Amino acid sequence: MLTLYHCLSARSFRPLWMLEEIGVSYDLQVLPFPPRSQQRSYLAVNPLGTVPALAEGAQLMTESAAICQYLAARFSPGAMDVAVDEPDYGAYLNALHFGEATLTFPQTLVLRYRYFEPAERRQPQVADDYARWFLARLRSLEPVLATREFLCAGRFTAADVSVAYALLLATHLDLSNHFTPAVAAYWARLQQRDGYRKALEVQHQAALAQGVSTIPAPDIR
Amino acid sequence: MLTLYHCLSARSFRPLWMLEEIGVSYDLQVLPFPPRSQQRSYLAVNPLGTVPALAEGAQLMTESAAICQYLAARFSPGAMDVAVDEPDYGAYLNALHFGEATLTFPQTLVLRYRYFEPAERRQPQVADDYARWFLARLRSLEPVLATREFLCAGRFTAADVSVAYALLLATHLDLSNHFTPAVAAYWARLQQRDGYRKALEVQHQAALAQGVSTIPAPDIR
Repeated sequence: MLTLYHCLSARSFRPLWMLEEIGVSYDLQVLPFPPRSQQRSYLAVNPLGTVPALAEGAQLMTESAAICQYLAARFSPGAMDVAVDEPDYGAYLNALHFGEATLTFPQTLVLRYRYFEPAERRQPQVADDYARWFLARLRSLEPVLATREFLCAGRFTAADVSVAYALLLATHLDLSNHFTPAVAAYWARLQQRDGYRKALEVQHQAALAQGVSTIPAPDIR
Repeated sequence: MLTLYHCLSARSFRPLWMLEEIGVSYDLQVLPFPPRSQQRSYLAVNPLGTVPALAEGAQLMTESAAICQYLAARFSPGAMDVAVDEPDYGAYLNALHFGEATLTFPQTLVLRYRYFEPAERRQPQVADDYARWFLARLRSLEPVLATREFLCAGRFTAADVSVAYALLLATHLDLSNHFTPAVAAYWARLQQRDGYRKALEVQHQAALAQGVSTIPAPDIR
């Protein structure tokens, strides 16, 4: 049995979206944000205090892009996973990591130093540095997406979920108005997917049922 | 044929170490740091201007932890790779991502805002925030390494290379004096490996041969 620990619109939206695309059953625990301070009991599950955490028996995973690859390999071989003998295996792994390490982390600096820190600790220079950094790296996807519907392997994979979460986060940070045309069109297409819409609805209903605020709160970890 | 583009002691040390552990043949191109400004011709190879880049025919990979997994899966199945049907597959993927997204990126902020930026753009608060952030996340490895020689699967894998590069970077940033005992012992053990020592020697010799400074220059990308 899979249990996903999640905060609304945080990185844990990646595995939630994956689970809805794949259609595997899971238990969803929605936590107030940030769980490290708002739900101290969560530290017994994940000592890092971060989301996501995916529990499966005694195993715990905490890295959202790794969880996407794991779910794809275990539950969606030949579909959301890309196998080692496919020509796009390297492109698949690269995009999985690129979505998090290169496209998401820089945005958490914008979030932290432009919005979340108290006024005296805000750092407009750092927020601006990493907003630019994010948009510069994102531009590398324009030629890729100008001729392809998905990032790799000619189909929707876990790599798209990894990168698309960074695009979702960018909409919360008012950076999406800088998307280049093919990236903007890709993001518009992905939002039409049943799995994406279902994941949005599931997190909303679970938050209501579990008494957690339904205001999105992206995670700065 | 594999070509690795590398700057001394940058993230591209991960794939270099992997290649030396596996023993596969490759061409090593050492670039001055940062290549984006010091060797503009490199932008024709990798428009991001970052290292690493691993070229194999028309395919280019740019994410160091993804390259580690790729090399392991392609050239070291059952050894440096962990297969989907092994119990530690999830732990393997998690550690691969954890080494970069959670342990390396925060250190690049220390590097940038404590050392690399001109004096008027330095941000001691941000450098301190992310030095603490790195060390807090790193502590989660202490219980894992207190009872294990390697991170997962009972053997040296690409996940160890991903995490160990973060430990190498920490030594350059004077953060390694804060390592907890099991982490410090793990890092000491890994530095004794033939593959690690060979990678250090290879980058030094290649830099000399190619006329690039041999002073380590970790990459802030």
